[in-house]
Amino acid sequence: FMQKLDVHYLCIKDFHLPLDSNEEQIAAFKAKLAKAGVTGYGVGPIYMKSEAEVDRAFAYAKRVGVNLVVGVPNYDLLDYTEKVVKQYDIRLAIHLHGPDMPLYPDATDIWEHVKDRDPRMGMCLDIGHNLRYGSDSLRDLKKYYKRVFDMHMKDVTGNTKADHSVELGRGVIDFPSYVRIMRKVGYTGSVSLEYEKDMKTPFNGIAESVGYFRGVCAAV
Amino acid sequence: FMQKLDVHYLCIKDFHLPLDSNEEQIAAFKAKLAKAGVTGYGVGPIYMKSEAEVDRAFAYAKRVGVNLVVGVPNYDLLDYTEKVVKQYDIRLAIHLHGPDMPLYPDATDIWEHVKDRDPRMGMCLDIGHNLRYGSDSLRDLKKYYKRVFDMHMKDVTGNTKADHSVELGRGVIDFPSYVRIMRKVGYTGSVSLEYEKDMKTPFNGIAESVGYFRGVCAAV
Repeated sequence: FMQKLDVHYLCIKDFHLPLDSNEEQIAAFKAKLAKAGVTGYGVGPIYMKSEAEVDRAFAYAKRVGVNLVVGVPNYDLLDYTEKVVKQYDIRLAIHLHGPDMPLYPDATDIWEHVKDRDPRMGMCLDIGHNLRYGSDSLRDLKKYYKRVFDMHMKDVTGNTKADHSVELGRGVIDFPSYVRIMRKVGYTGSVSLEYEKDMKTPFNGIAESVGYFRGVCAAV
Repeated sequence: FMQKLDVHYLCIKDFHLPLDSNEEQIAAFKAKLAKAGVTGYGVGPIYMKSEAEVDRAFAYAKRVGVNLVVGVPNYDLLDYTEKVVKQYDIRLAIHLHGPDMPLYPDATDIWEHVKDRDPRMGMCLDIGHNLRYGSDSLRDLKKYYKRVFDMHMKDVTGNTKADHSVELGRGVIDFPSYVRIMRKVGYTGSVSLEYEKDMKTPFNGIAESVGYFRGVCAAV
């Protein structure tokens, strides 16, 4: 499906490739991606509730051969996680989840937790969840872009917990402004579609969303 | 599928509703469209090779209740067609087909055939076929927009007969410039996706193309 959509980068999630995969399984998965012209650019999101889980996440990223873990370490694991980031020289993009869970609700919360830490610790700015928490994702991208390593693109119906994901362009998010800011600040991170509508038959909605983002990029 | 895509206007083709449909069949089809929130904005493309076929096309449009026939009357039927356009007070948008057939290869050919005729005679500017004939569709939209009643949006791989249709955004056509011109001239006609790739499994490509065009419109 990614090949048909002409999309070439994937954030590898554990349902694509389990965290305990060995070298052989990883090689087989990467060969499958390569056959479709796809490269894994990172792994995650991975939740980390213990030091062992932090170790496991970064060892996995190293085995997969990527320089980015999109992850959610418990707050009290941040000191330990920083050591592991340095040890592996692999970046951590902490994923925010808006009003749905207490850990890292928005971009400002992540910023406050990483701004004085190793510069390889930053965020995956989920523009939909951030907005559903009531935060201004455009403002946050401008303020925090130096620590934004990845973004989850999605559209949502509004700025409350009750709002939900829709196809890009059908909600309230102003995508042209995001692309203008990314261009203006020279954003060099990745941008991933995280499509959360019609989970059982998502393909038309994914295609529509990818097309929408490309149209915006072409016109901005 | 149109409902899922949030698309609300359809150019009714004979494979949707045969040309000899009676009032009851038309009412049933329109009820089906209405249930999906869709309105027919025109009929066609309809090829017309005789006066009887011109009569049939316009009588059909009248029964369907639309003000637009997208059609291809033979050149020697244009005088007769003009009478029928006046008789029914229904517009004709002549469809161009580029290098694939000798009738109306490009926008200039249509313009030359309609410019001194009733102002209800114009064109459906197929930007892909026009380009595949080697004509500049952006220039033609600017020059001929007063007689452009409908447009067939598509992307193509290049400007020769050997080139073919692809998803919007994947070919050579500059969609942001089309939208800018439509806005500048105050284009009031319709814009239809005519998707001609993967005819058996077109849905993802249609969704991607609709998304792309919306993204361009949002950003221009």
